This record gives sequence, C-alpha cells and structure tokens, in this order.
Amino acid sequence: MLDLLTLALDWLGLTVFATSGALVASRKQMDLVGFALLGTATGIGGGTLRDLLLGVAPVFWVRAPTPLLLCVGVSILVYFTAHIPQSRYRLLLWLDAVGLAVFAVTGAETALASGATPVVAVGMGVVTATFGGVIRDVLGGESPVVLSREIYVTAALVGAALAVGLLTFVQPRETALVAGFLGAFVTRGAALQWGWSLPRYRPRPARDGAGPPADRQRP
Amino acid sequence: MLDLLTLALDWLGLTVFATSGALVASRKQMDLVGFALLGTATGIGGGTLRDLLLGVAPVFWVRAPTPLLLCVGVSILVYFTAHIPQSRYRLLLWLDAVGLAVFAVTGAETALASGATPVVAVGMGVVTATFGGVIRDVLGGESPVVLSREIYVTAALVGAALAVGLLTFVQPRETALVAGFLGAFVTRGAALQWGWSLPRYRPRPARDGAGPPADRQRP
Amino acid sequence: MLDLLTLALDWLGLTVFATSGALVASRKQMDLVGFALLGTATGIGGGTLRDLLLGVAPVFWVRAPTPLLLCVGVSILVYFTAHIPQSRYRLLLWLDAVGLAVFAVTGAETALASGATPVVAVGMGVVTATFGGVIRDVLGGESPVVLSREIYVTAALVGAALAVGLLTFVQPRETALVAGFLGAFVTRGAALQWGWSLPRYRPRPARDGAGPPADRQRP
Repeated sequence: MLDLLTLALDWLGLTVFATSGALVASRKQMDLVGFALLGTATGIGGGTLRDLLLGVAPVFWVRAPTPLLLCVGVSILVYFTAHIPQSRYRLLLWLDAVGLAVFAVTGAETALASGATPVVAVGMGVVTATFGGVIRDVLGGESPVVLSREIYVTAALVGAALAVGLLTFVQPRETALVAGFLGAFVTRGAALQWGWSLPRYRPRPARDGAGPPADRQRP
Repeated sequence: MLDLLTLALDWLGLTVFATSGALVASRKQMDLVGFALLGTATGIGGGTLRDLLLGVAPVFWVRAPTPLLLCVGVSILVYFTAHIPQSRYRLLLWLDAVGLAVFAVTGAETALASGATPVVAVGMGVVTATFGGVIRDVLGGESPVVLSREIYVTAALVGAALAVGLLTFVQPRETALVAGFLGAFVTRGAALQWGWSLPRYRPRPARDGAGPPADRQRP
Repeated sequence: MLDLLTLALDWLGLTVFATSGALVASRKQMDLVGFALLGTATGIGGGTLRDLLLGVAPVFWVRAPTPLLLCVGVSILVYFTAHIPQSRYRLLLWLDAVGLAVFAVTGAETALASGATPVVAVGMGVVTATFGGVIRDVLGGESPVVLSREIYVTAALVGAALAVGLLTFVQPRETALVAGFLGAFVTRGAALQWGWSLPRYRPRPARDGAGPPADRQRP
C-alpha cells in the first residue's frame, strides 16, 4: 500500500512535468526528438539533482530506466496531441503546479529517508520541485518560472514543510504525503486562479534623499 | 589497440569541443582566461555530467588532470589563431558536429561499461554529447544549440543507439565505435550541409474552430 | 586556530554571496521566498559543485544544515534592508569580489585536502569561486558575470594559484590562505576600481583579404 502510493506519486510527477516540458517544446516548434529531450529533462531533472546532492549514486533513472521510458513516451504523445487543448500555456501552468506539489513531498521524504535533518529535507523538497522547471526554462530559452510574479517557490516550501512536519511527528505516512501535496497544490493553484502573491520587494526612497530613485531601482 | 582508440576518441572530442567553446569566447571578444574557461567547460562538461550521473567519483579530470591541461592549451591556441579561418561560425558548427559524434559513442560505451542497461546507455550518450554545448551556450549567453532548426540531438541519438546496438550484439568493439561515430557525424553533417530537419511541431486549427489560431500558437 | 580560520572564511563567503544573490532578487523585485532561494543558491552553489566534482557525498549542507540556515537568514535580512545602500549594484559587485576571493582559496584547499593534484586544485578553486555567481545570474535572468569586460575569472585564478603554490611548498597554512585571498581580492578590486582588463580578443583582417571583416566578427 505504501509502496503503491510512492509509485503513483512518482509516476504522476514524472508524467505532468514531462508534459509541461513537451508543451514548451511545442511552443518552440521543436521536432519529435526535441520534445523527448525537453520532456525527459523536465521530468527527471528535479529527482536527478536530489539524488546527486544526497549522494545517491548512480541516480534513480540509471538504476532502473522506467522513468526515462515513461518521460519519452509522454513527450511523444504530447507531440501528436498538443493541438487539442484550448490553451497550452494555461495547461502547462496547471501541470507544472501538480508536478511542483508531488516532487516537493517526495523529494522531502526521500531526503528524510536517506538520513537528512528536517531542515535539509525541506530544502531538498523545494529543490526537487523547482529544478525540473528551471532546466526546462533554460533549455527552452524561456524566462525562469521561479521569477514568476505569483507564488511559486513558496508553494513548494509549504508542501515540503507540511510533509516533513507531519512525518517527523509520526502521523500516518499517507496523511503526511497527501497533506503536503494538497498544501502545495492549493497554494499554487490559488496563485494561478486568483493571482495570489506575497509582498514583493519595492525600492524605497533613500534615507538622505540624495540620489534619484532610479539610481536605486536600476543602478 | 583498443585503449589507443578510446584515448584517440577522447582527445579528439576534448579538442574539438574546447575549440568550439573558445570560438564562442572569440565571438564575445573575451580575454585569454575567458577563452580557457569557456573552452575547458565545453570540452569537459559532457563527460563531467556523465560521471556524476553514473556515480563515478571523483569525475574523470579530477582523477587525472590531462584533459584539463589539454582543453586549456587548445583554448590558448585558439586565442592566437581564431582570426585565420574564413568563417569562425561555420567552423564552430562543424567542430561541434565532430564532438557530438565522438561523445555520443564514448558516453554510451562508458555507461555500458559501468553496468547501465542499453536504454540508459543510449540516453547517457545523448547527454554526454549535448551537455558540453549546452553549458557553452549558457556561459556564453548564446541561444541554446539544442533548439537549432536542423537535426542536432537526433544525430547524437542515432550514433549512441547504433553503438549500443552493435556493442550489445557482440560485434567487434572498434566496428561499433566507428559505426556509431559515422552514424552521428554523417547525420549532423547532412543537416549542416543540406539543412536536413525532422518535421517540427506545427500548431493546428482547433477541433471545434472556436478559438483563433494565435491562441494556440502563443497563448 | 586553524579551524577557526576555515570557519570564518566559510561563513564570510556564504554571507557575502548570499547577500549578492539577495540583491539580484531585489533588482528583480521578488518576494521573500524568492530572496531566500536566490541568496541560498548563490551562497552554497559553488561549494556544492565542488563537492559533487570531488565525489564528496552528500554535499556539505546536507551533512550539516548551518550554511543553509545562514544563507536563508542573510537573505531575509537583505529583504528588509536592501533600500539602505546608496547603490545596490555597486555593493553587489564588491560583495561578489569578496566571495570570489574566499571561495577561490577554500575551494582550492578543499580539493588539495581530498587528494587532488595541484593543477586540479587550482581549477577547483576557480569553479568554486565562479559557479555561485553563474547560478545567480541564470536564475535571476541576468547577463553572466563571467562575461564581464573587467578581470573576473582571472582574479579567482590568481588567488587559487597563489594559495596552492604556497600550500604545496609548505608555507604556514594561514599565510597561504590569506595571501591567496588578498591576491584574488586585490586583483578583482583593482579591476572594479580602475577598470583593469586583460587584452580582449579582437578580430583581425583576413590574411587573404577576400572576405569582409563583418564575416569574421559576426558570421
């Protein structure tokens, strides 16, 4: 039962992130192999960095290639169906939200299982959740999603912290994983739906009023 | 004899990728140390990521620094000779093609030798072949070559798959390596020479005809 | 005494690089979590890549989370105080210079301590010193600082080579570290203050005069 939940979450995360990578490939009008590359790098990127940082070697998809084949398969499917959704960009954002929530939770749990402290496990959840999107945007030449105006990294932080907290205080494991997933997904979903954002840094006038504001904002 | 072939391929790959990195440095009018950095990162980048993913630690150029010195030397040489070729950009593309073909084959073989499955070995060949160019383009602020309209990643895939297939079905090792190299190089060379490309994804009209095409292409 | 010096240098490097990352977040008007992400990635990025390349697993901040907490704390502090300095950009460059000098020296020493050859140790100092800035610029969507017209990578090279040379020829360890730090910092500081630069590559007329110069410069 437990292993089934882990497996289901892993496959869900891989599938939605691979789809989001392949949708960026469709926006760039790449060929089939470009779809496979971008989809696969996005799907396995977060977990790969997690394994490297934790010292788990070789990384998970080298030990067993199913995730690799899954991501390639999903990317090929997207190549032939990406014209169907009304708005690919909107779909991309929602799939990215699901992947963010899944990997925040599974990344944090994997780190705890390998003996990391809770603080590190939360950080590892954030890294696992966001790095797939970072690599997708770098390879695809898009503006990095971590710079988005709406809440993004914060959602991963909420989910990872919730999961780590519940796992540490011996709640049932399924409850911790599902609560962490929902915490992250609802936070990011609300940001997408209603434009939620945290207060952004705003340059203020200098204390002595000597320099022009422009000097502070874009020096 | 076998070791000599591996050594020759390794040095060839390092040399041509280091040259391609240094040529990007020349396009950016960097100084001598910038040439060395960009040339070396491009030359050793693919093999470094391969070693990290396979869990080979420390990475190859930390174990023995010859590749590091070779790449630095090549980059310095390019600093003083980059004005000679008629078109540095054309040269860059062809050198990149040679490096792509070499590293697709050696990356796949190294993965097989470390116990990876054939599917993973093909993926590792593609990663090794393309990552040097990715890091070169990121550091140099160029548009990522993996987005190029002509066949690029596909050529690495052809070479790696050919090499892995022949190595698995116990052909002589030299035949497998040379065939893989030629497969990748000829594919990429044809793309450079005649503009070969695979069908690129094209947005199609919506099934229900409700939305304007622009909504699909750039939503 | 020795350990205190290492600790002081480590914390100094983490603090200044985290501050420089958070200042980029302030330029991009990110939220508090964005500050923490960019500050932390910049602070621990160089040492993380160093550990990965040397095969030190798991990486340093997974083994003990103090660096992570330090970087997060510094980033939060910057969020509330970034409006105070007259020119955040100028401050960013000088903090980056301090971090560059610290990590060039500590990166090289860590590599030597793990058994790397002197040549590799110098390279590792350069990688450790520059990678935090590279990841900061990629995540923040800024032009890579390694492309800066003034001396940058060279300063890391000077500091790392000086430290490795002095450490190898059994000078007192403190002397080697301090001399390496000063070598790098003075070099980069002079470049910032007086615009020092090495000769940059300049395209020259073709030998045969057949093609137009533009063909060579931007082909």
